[in-house]
Amino acid sequence: MHRVIALDAMGSDRAPKPEIEGAIQASRRFGIHVALVGPEEILQAELSRHPFSGSLPITIVHASEVITMEDKAVQAVRAKRDSSMRVGSRLVREGKAAAFISAGNTGAAMATAKMVLGGLPGVDRPALVAIIPTAVGTVSTLLDVGANVDCKPHNLEQFAMMGEIYFRSMFGTPRPRVGLLSIGEEEGKGNELTRESYPLLKQLPINFVGNVEGRDIYNGKVDVIVSDGFVGNVALKTSEGVANLVRSTLKETLAATITRQVGYLLSRSAFHDFKKRLDHTEYGGAPLLGIKGACFITHGSSNVNAIKNAVRVANDFAERDITAHIEKEMAALHPAEVPEEVKVDD
Amino acid sequence: MHRVIALDAMGSDRAPKPEIEGAIQASRRFGIHVALVGPEEILQAELSRHPFSGSLPITIVHASEVITMEDKAVQAVRAKRDSSMRVGSRLVREGKAAAFISAGNTGAAMATAKMVLGGLPGVDRPALVAIIPTAVGTVSTLLDVGANVDCKPHNLEQFAMMGEIYFRSMFGTPRPRVGLLSIGEEEGKGNELTRESYPLLKQLPINFVGNVEGRDIYNGKVDVIVSDGFVGNVALKTSEGVANLVRSTLKETLAATITRQVGYLLSRSAFHDFKKRLDHTEYGGAPLLGIKGACFITHGSSNVNAIKNAVRVANDFAERDITAHIEKEMAALHPAEVPEEVKVDD
Repeated sequence: MHRVIALDAMGSDRAPKPEIEGAIQASRRFGIHVALVGPEEILQAELSRHPFSGSLPITIVHASEVITMEDKAVQAVRAKRDSSMRVGSRLVREGKAAAFISAGNTGAAMATAKMVLGGLPGVDRPALVAIIPTAVGTVSTLLDVGANVDCKPHNLEQFAMMGEIYFRSMFGTPRPRVGLLSIGEEEGKGNELTRESYPLLKQLPINFVGNVEGRDIYNGKVDVIVSDGFVGNVALKTSEGVANLVRSTLKETLAATITRQVGYLLSRSAFHDFKKRLDHTEYGGAPLLGIKGACFITHGSSNVNAIKNAVRVANDFAERDITAHIEKEMAALHPAEVPEEVKVDD
Repeated sequence: MHRVIALDAMGSDRAPKPEIEGAIQASRRFGIHVALVGPEEILQAELSRHPFSGSLPITIVHASEVITMEDKAVQAVRAKRDSSMRVGSRLVREGKAAAFISAGNTGAAMATAKMVLGGLPGVDRPALVAIIPTAVGTVSTLLDVGANVDCKPHNLEQFAMMGEIYFRSMFGTPRPRVGLLSIGEEEGKGNELTRESYPLLKQLPINFVGNVEGRDIYNGKVDVIVSDGFVGNVALKTSEGVANLVRSTLKETLAATITRQVGYLLSRSAFHDFKKRLDHTEYGGAPLLGIKGACFITHGSSNVNAIKNAVRVANDFAERDITAHIEKEMAALHPAEVPEEVKVDD
């Protein structure tokens, strides 16, 4: 049987256009089977604008409701029982899809995935992972970037473990370097949370390199950066702010004189490469680790390229069976614990 | 009497060269009187390499000891009673200098300033302020960026007030917009600290615009961004990381072909402008607000330009008597409270 990737077709700011075109590209280019989830009529109408799409392995799974960016996450998840997020997550739970992707309301997508799929034993809180380009051409990963505020040391301990398993299984690095995001490299530096988490991370069966700082997210000195979700989310959004600042300042200064404009024309391909290397849409979505199934969240501003890459990356994730790796290794970590029964409200 | 700015001549990574040349430039260009603090012989020898420096209003104040980057902040401050930081702070306490600047060990410089100068009544914890260029050509300010971890809501309340007074007094903006750094704009978004701080900031006599996100630090939508010191420091160092990533990636992609290299040559002046606009050395040091006196901390990698600008900005700060503004307005905020007696251990 084909592996199917379920894609929330109503998630992004300009849905369903980027979703449908992204699905077509992923399916044409990589032969991936995509299940578009959303109101059948709307999706059918949009798909029919692409005459060749009929020959591709793309199906539509009907969902009558849509969760918007304005919806309150938890309420929307409970109230809209036939939302594209809920139906998509259900496909994963029922084994009809190997992964679910949404560019919609991040809070709602995470809440839906947690509720419909449930958490893995040994994981108290799932974590959202950002994939980040570094100055040396590699990628690093930062978790958590939004799922969890006011974390406790054992949450960070679990994030470290899950991040390590993910990086190792996904990128084939035998001993990924794991760092704890703090404000100084020595063990005693940081706040109460990092000081209490440090000894826990130190005794994990991972390559823990100690505290790292904000700049280490981008310099390639470390592969997995562990953080409370509030701090991780601030770091990520601050990075977006700096990137926007650089873009607008560079544009303005390059446009100021004719000579500079000519210079820009000649070096334009460099800017294209530059943009591509730093472009988050190249790296696919952010996986939500620690749930029973594969779930990816992409930016609301996702374009066709972002969706195409998210489908590709979700397919890789499913192919490598990373959820099973996490489940097995988290269970081995605390073998004495009896897995909690997770209530699945669906 | 001349206003004197005391400068730790032994602070930066390449001290005392950048300090001495920066002092010379500030003094020559702006006519500011600078007191260089450090080992007299070393400073005298370095000064004598600049033949015209004798005619400038530059003096040397002897301090026999130096606190290094490797020193543990609090111990070093207590042990080295004749350090350049301690002697410089003492000049401010005794009214012999209007401000003190150090590019040395940030923790030690802050601890010294707090200990020697003491805190202002109504301020439980002083805050370090970063001055940040925005995409619209203005500056914004972020506090705290390193002095305080594990803040309580009343700390953030005081940071908001001090930041507002600083911005208003320094930049002449009548009603600076003050935002609370969080991970979502609605009042309920964020972690325990931001949710509890929000109502406190809301009732302050300031233009509180609510929660802001990491990207708002750089887009000019807000003037003063209030944050716990751990989060602020992570945001600042993450920004450095992104800036370095952009620089190295751009350099690499521009050097890849001859055409691009020619293009770069033609647009080189744009990169110079660009660098200048984003260069932190243009903005002077970070003021430490809430202590009895003016104290500025600059980056350990400070070059001549950074020191020159720090001297200029510290002189402005002293001229506008911002410490007095903060003292007066913080006292007016809670008039019923009896100011605590601050122990000055010196």
